[in-house]
Amino acid sequence: MIETPFLVDQYCHGVLRTELGLGTFEAQLSRTEGPPAPGTTLFDTQTGFAVRRWCPPLLGLEPHCAPARYLARRRELGALEAGRRLLRGSGITTYLVDTGLPGDLTGPGEMASAGDAEAREIVRLEPLAEQVADTSGTVESFLANLAESVHGAAATAVAFTSVAGLRHGLALAPEPPGPGEVRGAAGRWLAGRRVGGALTDPVLLRHLLWNAVASGLPLQLHAGLGEPGYRADRTDPVLLTDFIRATAGLGTDLVLLHGYPYHRHTAHLAGVFPHVYADSGAALVRTGARAATVLAEILELAPFGKILFSTGAHGLPELHVIGARLFREALSRVLGGWVAEGAWVRADAQRVARLIAADNARRVYGLG
Amino acid sequence: MIETPFLVDQYCHGVLRTELGLGTFEAQLSRTEGPPAPGTTLFDTQTGFAVRRWCPPLLGLEPHCAPARYLARRRELGALEAGRRLLRGSGITTYLVDTGLPGDLTGPGEMASAGDAEAREIVRLEPLAEQVADTSGTVESFLANLAESVHGAAATAVAFTSVAGLRHGLALAPEPPGPGEVRGAAGRWLAGRRVGGALTDPVLLRHLLWNAVASGLPLQLHAGLGEPGYRADRTDPVLLTDFIRATAGLGTDLVLLHGYPYHRHTAHLAGVFPHVYADSGAALVRTGARAATVLAEILELAPFGKILFSTGAHGLPELHVIGARLFREALSRVLGGWVAEGAWVRADAQRVARLIAADNARRVYGLG
Amino acid sequence: MIETPFLVDQYCHGVLRTELGLGTFEAQLSRTEGPPAPGTTLFDTQTGFAVRRWCPPLLGLEPHCAPARYLARRRELGALEAGRRLLRGSGITTYLVDTGLPGDLTGPGEMASAGDAEAREIVRLEPLAEQVADTSGTVESFLANLAESVHGAAATAVAFTSVAGLRHGLALAPEPPGPGEVRGAAGRWLAGRRVGGALTDPVLLRHLLWNAVASGLPLQLHAGLGEPGYRADRTDPVLLTDFIRATAGLGTDLVLLHGYPYHRHTAHLAGVFPHVYADSGAALVRTGARAATVLAEILELAPFGKILFSTGAHGLPELHVIGARLFREALSRVLGGWVAEGAWVRADAQRVARLIAADNARRVYGLG
Repeated sequence: MIETPFLVDQYCHGVLRTELGLGTFEAQLSRTEGPPAPGTTLFDTQTGFAVRRWCPPLLGLEPHCAPARYLARRRELGALEAGRRLLRGSGITTYLVDTGLPGDLTGPGEMASAGDAEAREIVRLEPLAEQVADTSGTVESFLANLAESVHGAAATAVAFTSVAGLRHGLALAPEPPGPGEVRGAAGRWLAGRRVGGALTDPVLLRHLLWNAVASGLPLQLHAGLGEPGYRADRTDPVLLTDFIRATAGLGTDLVLLHGYPYHRHTAHLAGVFPHVYADSGAALVRTGARAATVLAEILELAPFGKILFSTGAHGLPELHVIGARLFREALSRVLGGWVAEGAWVRADAQRVARLIAADNARRVYGLG
Repeated sequence: MIETPFLVDQYCHGVLRTELGLGTFEAQLSRTEGPPAPGTTLFDTQTGFAVRRWCPPLLGLEPHCAPARYLARRRELGALEAGRRLLRGSGITTYLVDTGLPGDLTGPGEMASAGDAEAREIVRLEPLAEQVADTSGTVESFLANLAESVHGAAATAVAFTSVAGLRHGLALAPEPPGPGEVRGAAGRWLAGRRVGGALTDPVLLRHLLWNAVASGLPLQLHAGLGEPGYRADRTDPVLLTDFIRATAGLGTDLVLLHGYPYHRHTAHLAGVFPHVYADSGAALVRTGARAATVLAEILELAPFGKILFSTGAHGLPELHVIGARLFREALSRVLGGWVAEGAWVRADAQRVARLIAADNARRVYGLG
Repeated sequence: MIETPFLVDQYCHGVLRTELGLGTFEAQLSRTEGPPAPGTTLFDTQTGFAVRRWCPPLLGLEPHCAPARYLARRRELGALEAGRRLLRGSGITTYLVDTGLPGDLTGPGEMASAGDAEAREIVRLEPLAEQVADTSGTVESFLANLAESVHGAAATAVAFTSVAGLRHGLALAPEPPGPGEVRGAAGRWLAGRRVGGALTDPVLLRHLLWNAVASGLPLQLHAGLGEPGYRADRTDPVLLTDFIRATAGLGTDLVLLHGYPYHRHTAHLAGVFPHVYADSGAALVRTGARAATVLAEILELAPFGKILFSTGAHGLPELHVIGARLFREALSRVLGGWVAEGAWVRADAQRVARLIAADNARRVYGLG
């Protein structure tokens, strides 16, 4: 009933180019610190069940077929052709692709051609700084090259993204670090660092954030459930409040990614601060049959012009599919339910659905 | 099906006496730090949609009409007449009015006559102390006048309310500050203060709280999502646990206001401590079509004799209307749903509904 | 529609052997710091309403009858016979019983015979250490006897359980304390302690946890809403993240009990760490008519092979009954609803239901 002809996936990654077996596929379904517990499988999760529901029909199989059968069919088609069918079946019309993760992943151009869609690049700040460090000999050249890299990226990317909150916690000092402080931190980091070493120094993380803020591009900040290796209690987006306040009025929008299980906090911040936006994305992929409730919780406090769809998908085109399908179904159920109850009228529901699915993202990222 | 003939709004403010245009009306729909983001409007929020649903019919228009049309009709009637129609259409039979906010707001007497209802005053502690400071020359006179003011207010008010948690955070030291400590803090505050300066000193905030506790009147504490300018992570009501424990058995009830998104924590505290009560109010106004779920979450742990209805409305009589309508609809849906499922019986549901709508508040505030 | 022929209650206590009057029964319905507030009763809670729904029919009365009538019938039958009828009516086929709480409570053997079920013992670490301290003259003998007691308990118990998180907060230093540190803490504790004194020293609590980890038995950790006397903000299970990481790969499973209102955090940890499991239990007894929603929230992130049913019941066999009935009804409604919507297929729902009801517990605790 609620229709969303366009779908801008405002945060995702590319898909793996390699062929996957049952075990390597399963390992991509979830972010864990270790293999599945004995006697369990990651297919027995909301994500696994959603993949089994939505993806087999796109490859010519019945929904909910056994994982082994699905993987056999996927290998039969080959990763490239399976990916093509899946991405085209997702309904996504624009992909904004974070290219900062390692692995044999497709870039924006390949996502566009495989998915018969538009695609643009999001630049992840921390790997950018790590690459600059790999090739800079001195503190001065590192800082100059970093500034130039951020400036250069801003010319083509649609947004920056940062995982400072997952690496250090979101309770970073809100103000930009001073030049001496930055030079000191850069010196210590470069001196102790081997090629490829990860950036976790809070002064340099803040320096990066403020460089991105100065570019004027929207800045996407990871919050909520993070990567393995980090602590979820340090990623509550309300910890960002002082940084948000410090960046108010500068003309740069902040997009709070993920959020779950603190998505109500994200929605609150999007309601209070004009330059803050709430992602409705990756949480749906993780919570599957519960996606409508999670989306409804975001819709409690976030103004409808401040919510952005994404899949957060990474590695498997199946995740793009379920991110899009779960979102559309959840949106239709939640907004359609409110219309059925008489709380909303259909025209408003339809308008809000298109805002969240595509129009808000077009406005924030300046898409055509 | 579930009927609540009486409705005691145990926490609200007065309404603006001035005529409002589209922009000034919109600005009252939400608490933000800045104007709506470009391309967005605060009418596109749960609060805005709820106003458009419930209020136009009270002014003779169809539900969900466009905001400009509604505002034109409102100006045609005039703020006074529109307010009269709205308040009388809310179904609220008693207003407990916090008179401590600035602005051209109606007081309890005007609320009573406009709304054809009862009204009583709630005294906000911090502005009371600020007024006393404005007119006291010395630390000694300030402290003596403050004690007298609190004592005097207790003679006519039905409750005190404090925003100490929003100004300082709820993790205040639980015990009353000693006399020397209070004198020292008062001296520093008065010396550095200009007329009208806000009270944020934690020692004086605690001194105020304990003065209020000594009065024996119920003390309403703001928690959860607060005012702009504050940090939501410092207002989780569980941070009050030690203060709650310190005030147990003294004969003074504590009412935890708002709570959302920590309303499950509020409900827990109301379940554990005999003198703690949970507000079911302002969150419903903010979450609109989701009000039934938010109310149901409060009903998980809070004993049914410990939950109090409020609207938390401020400035717009439309907010009193939606606070009352959303509450009644949510209560009916939640309790009626449990009856339909066989989990509860109708007589219990009806009895619990009346407790929350009015009878608990009558008992706690000693209303006739 | 969803059937669970076996039900392993993976965490509960025994029932009181004494006859109960209306007041003593009511006091067992909830954990509070004080008597019910004037004008309120603990029967007016979700737990009270659930008892009135499910238990009277097991004693030959109509559902939802008045508490006084139910208590009269209970006394007429006697505590022993009423307990027999209630436990046998619960549907629980195996009880894992924490024997570490004081009071005139039945042990595993009596639970088995009264309930016509299997029963096994869970050993609570802190009372074990307190008993050892009562009978040990020196630090050396205390530490040696403690090690021996833990070792001995591991031979017959199915699990250890710890309330370190409720006594100290879950933000314990993650690593095992060194031998000198343990001896020092033990010396200070024993010197200052009277017989029966409670263990709250964080070094000794950690020493106990690591002794339990070394045994290889599953270790159940209390988190979330705790006992009166503690602070809920210190029991968020994400505070355990570093301890969880420190115990990864050692072969000992950790079971996070209760969790609510942080049960989504518990579910997240069960998803990230292979050796972590999520309890779906006591929260249902506390939230009654809301049990389906609470269970569904656990089912968002927790892999289905990592969720374990329990009642957490203590003192009243009525709590075992409602824990089991609410769980079965919630499970059927949640999983059955997903089948009805087409999100899941029936065979998967049935399989997942049996995992959570019994099979996961059998695997984790090595039950026959």
